[in-house]
Amino acid sequence: MNGRAIRIIGIDPGLRRTGWGIIECDGARLVYVASGVITPPKDDDLAYRLSALFDSITSVIQSFSPSEAAVEETFVNENPRSTLKLGQARGAILLAPARLGLRVAEYTPNLIKKSVTGTGHAEKHQIQAMIAFLLPKAKFEGADEADALAIAITHAHHRTSRQRLAALTPKVAET
Amino acid sequence: MNGRAIRIIGIDPGLRRTGWGIIECDGARLVYVASGVITPPKDDDLAYRLSALFDSITSVIQSFSPSEAAVEETFVNENPRSTLKLGQARGAILLAPARLGLRVAEYTPNLIKKSVTGTGHAEKHQIQAMIAFLLPKAKFEGADEADALAIAITHAHHRTSRQRLAALTPKVAET
Repeated sequence: MNGRAIRIIGIDPGLRRTGWGIIECDGARLVYVASGVITPPKDDDLAYRLSALFDSITSVIQSFSPSEAAVEETFVNENPRSTLKLGQARGAILLAPARLGLRVAEYTPNLIKKSVTGTGHAEKHQIQAMIAFLLPKAKFEGADEADALAIAITHAHHRTSRQRLAALTPKVAET
Repeated sequence: MNGRAIRIIGIDPGLRRTGWGIIECDGARLVYVASGVITPPKDDDLAYRLSALFDSITSVIQSFSPSEAAVEETFVNENPRSTLKLGQARGAILLAPARLGLRVAEYTPNLIKKSVTGTGHAEKHQIQAMIAFLLPKAKFEGADEADALAIAITHAHHRTSRQRLAALTPKVAET
């Protein structure tokens, strides 16, 4: 890693399984750093499960010191109970990078699929195959880690244009 | 307050407005302590709004040192986007008492209405009138604070039976 390389964490939030993946991007070059899955204890109270999730993702961020974070803009489920659960997990997870001073970018599932595979309608196994191709050193198991790495890659592809856009957006002074 | 009195915080979570209310309960006697509404900045990133919410509710808990917490078991909205927003706010809010070592009890909206007004189908203004009656020293404005105080009162009414039930439940050793 040289001085220009940026370390990015991608997070795929879930109450049962939260995938995370860290890459470095130096211009167009992407390098795998680490990835994993957090599975909070199932039996505990909801508040304590959320707390375990928050603690785990906080310690991942502290261990690998990414400077930018990205999550999937949540797919709104047909089942309201699932949506609520995912929302709660997401609330606890988004808090972790925010409290460590990282901005959190959000990307739609379609954009993530398109960034990684070239199509917005890719299947899970296609994403995993592309992650293995784009990050040949990646050691990941299953869809949650692959999705998290895909989110990090999407941010690597879009962060420059986002920054340019932000620089063009006029700031409105608070009154 | 004497040695037997328990201080309870009730929280009515929302991304735009989160009501909180603190009471003391000493047997059947209830005393108002404080209440308020947290309104995180609207313009900020979602992650930062959640962080502001978490910080505010954390500092309320640290200021008033309740020993037990209660929240409304969320009504699952027809609108999935609203449900997701509420879930995220709830995730950030539930984290605050959990990280300060407080157990968080959850009660359904119907049980809360019934505990305070005697009927599960009470209107907002009926709840506010009953809070003013049950906690004559309460200074609250609007439905969010009244709802938070109603949640705290519900917990005061049900905490003993919950504790008895927990004591009866056999603990299963982890294998």
